[in-house]
Amino acid sequence: MEEKNPVSRRKFVGGLAAALGYVSTGPNLDVFAQGRGAGQAAPGARRPQTPADYDALAKLANNENNWGIPDSVMEAMEGAWKYAGRYGYPDPGINEAIAEYDGIKPENIMLGAGSGEILNVVGVTFLQGGKKVLGVTPSYMSVYSHATSLKSEAITMPLTKDHRQDIGQMIDIANKRQNEIGFVYVVNPNNPTGVIVTKDEIDQLVKGIPAGMPILLDEAYHHYVDDPAYATGMPYVNQGRPIIVARTFSKIAAMAALRIGYAAAPPEILQKMRPYSTGSVNVLARYGAVATLQNPKTMADVKQKTKQLRDKTSKELRDLGYEVIPSQTNFFMVGLRREVQPVIAAFREEGVLVGRPFPPMTQHLRVSIGTAEEMDRFMVAFKKVMGRPATTTAQG
Amino acid sequence: MEEKNPVSRRKFVGGLAAALGYVSTGPNLDVFAQGRGAGQAAPGARRPQTPADYDALAKLANNENNWGIPDSVMEAMEGAWKYAGRYGYPDPGINEAIAEYDGIKPENIMLGAGSGEILNVVGVTFLQGGKKVLGVTPSYMSVYSHATSLKSEAITMPLTKDHRQDIGQMIDIANKRQNEIGFVYVVNPNNPTGVIVTKDEIDQLVKGIPAGMPILLDEAYHHYVDDPAYATGMPYVNQGRPIIVARTFSKIAAMAALRIGYAAAPPEILQKMRPYSTGSVNVLARYGAVATLQNPKTMADVKQKTKQLRDKTSKELRDLGYEVIPSQTNFFMVGLRREVQPVIAAFREEGVLVGRPFPPMTQHLRVSIGTAEEMDRFMVAFKKVMGRPATTTAQG
Repeated sequence: MEEKNPVSRRKFVGGLAAALGYVSTGPNLDVFAQGRGAGQAAPGARRPQTPADYDALAKLANNENNWGIPDSVMEAMEGAWKYAGRYGYPDPGINEAIAEYDGIKPENIMLGAGSGEILNVVGVTFLQGGKKVLGVTPSYMSVYSHATSLKSEAITMPLTKDHRQDIGQMIDIANKRQNEIGFVYVVNPNNPTGVIVTKDEIDQLVKGIPAGMPILLDEAYHHYVDDPAYATGMPYVNQGRPIIVARTFSKIAAMAALRIGYAAAPPEILQKMRPYSTGSVNVLARYGAVATLQNPKTMADVKQKTKQLRDKTSKELRDLGYEVIPSQTNFFMVGLRREVQPVIAAFREEGVLVGRPFPPMTQHLRVSIGTAEEMDRFMVAFKKVMGRPATTTAQG
Repeated sequence: MEEKNPVSRRKFVGGLAAALGYVSTGPNLDVFAQGRGAGQAAPGARRPQTPADYDALAKLANNENNWGIPDSVMEAMEGAWKYAGRYGYPDPGINEAIAEYDGIKPENIMLGAGSGEILNVVGVTFLQGGKKVLGVTPSYMSVYSHATSLKSEAITMPLTKDHRQDIGQMIDIANKRQNEIGFVYVVNPNNPTGVIVTKDEIDQLVKGIPAGMPILLDEAYHHYVDDPAYATGMPYVNQGRPIIVARTFSKIAAMAALRIGYAAAPPEILQKMRPYSTGSVNVLARYGAVATLQNPKTMADVKQKTKQLRDKTSKELRDLGYEVIPSQTNFFMVGLRREVQPVIAAFREEGVLVGRPFPPMTQHLRVSIGTAEEMDRFMVAFKKVMGRPATTTAQG
């Protein structure tokens, strides 16, 4: 277990770009934009490519949905253009649609600009007075970076040897350091590993930490899981437990840049969070989200294609002798037995964007699942970049 | 001058709906959605109309741009659909475009989900520790409501008899109650009156309040002003003064429901605000905003049409014997010499949405400028609702 002030993402991105020799002028493209917090680039973190360059890349870096938005959803969004200039436009019934999908009530829902806004709002709400966030590392580090920007800190635990979150240890720390902790952060399945916390472990966590200590349960990749040992935390919301389940339409619904996600939590938790929320989400995204929820077949289709390509690519990598961490998400990690940073740069030379480094797992590469054609490009690049494992490993 | 905890907007909306006998079931439409903060309806503030009903209304209630988004801007947004599922998409150069338009630097800019997010972020940033916001009433009350939700307060001053903001008194209070005040809020031109603060008065304010006290200068209606006595506060940003100018694409650019606006401020001010910002704006809105800035003719066209119809309608009302407050915006106030609330309800019966009550100006009606056809509908309804002034005034 270690306690630290993580380096802010902005600095990290800038540093990486600098390390790879990217210039800070020219067309704007940040190939290191990092998942849900992407948006406003800091000065210096300029985007170094043309739009045509960007379009040509195989984009396997940010856990995006490379199949794009289904026609039925696009149709719903196009139909909402007429409300673009309005405030009081007809609501598509989004809270009701979410409530039905998740088995909760409309008053349990707070929309956000992606789940990224939800994570930030939880941070601002529950880290006041110098409270800390407790979670594992590596995970979705944005929450820890945000804590730092709030002059707070993260208490982070390492993963177990089999890349799992040690819930027993988490409960232990939550009890021993109760007065320091503002909330517990669990990403399930975890990013960047793709590994779940089981429903039994979640239950132990909910019941084992001090009463009233909030849990932020980040289920950004919920829709990809098919392990029966997993379950969503939504039932705890219905029980009135101090739990905030964060969900997003960025992944399964391919709406990352449209910015819509939500918190599901008991009303008294949402009431605390609301002053720190924009309370305001793009109208097209609202209509698109409802259409997504009303077309579960399109989500099932994305899930099935993702799993098929994840399994196929994982097998090919294992056949080459590489360890692949079994994933329940739209990405996986492969152990390279060498440092990942130069490998990422080499992939970029092949026109393939792959995941950033996730310290301390600096010999693992995170690969998002793209289309079949993109996964083929990935495998070709992998063989070229990595060469034969026996001759190119640095420390393996 | 009075000090108060304004009633929250949500309660206000719910109360109004209740007063007008709106039911809380049925299709979702909140005809009282209030400008930039619109978005998540609170439980109980349900939207009582069908989309077809909504489309048929003359919408003159929320200071929207009823001409809609120009074709050139729509084209830019349609071209950005391909990035909908992406995080690291090519930035259209929005900070640079804004900087050029406003004569500031890219590092002076922070985007928000409309200027509404900017106002909230300023509140969270500068009202910590129980600090208060100082401003006039009526104004854009969202800032005061938000202060209340943060367990803070507003110190509010009445308008002068000619509906102006008393900048001398504001400076006086800012100095006398310096230790209590987190920031000063000035909407220029003011909403709901449409009246400007002159550039000389802004200069007096900037130089007359205690050094370091932030000013939130809300220029949501900047683009409609043609009074030469007015000027934007942007030059103070360049001087490094502690000023935050809030702007929006919701009005002049007709993008209210797409949610994009920005703060312009010195970098050290933005740095304080950033932890409380989502930092994340819809990709279509970004592309649309850049296209808007690159097509100043479309903004000039909206401004010209708005002014022409505002002047025409104002003259017609004055010819009927009503006082109209001279406005520099896309709305105006007309003095009814009777209570406005039943008049609003009567307009609704005629299929015309007009502005909500703005206490203490409860005998003034705020009317947003719509299309020529909508303004004709307004005048027909006005004559019907108000009857002949001499016989129908309640207290005049």
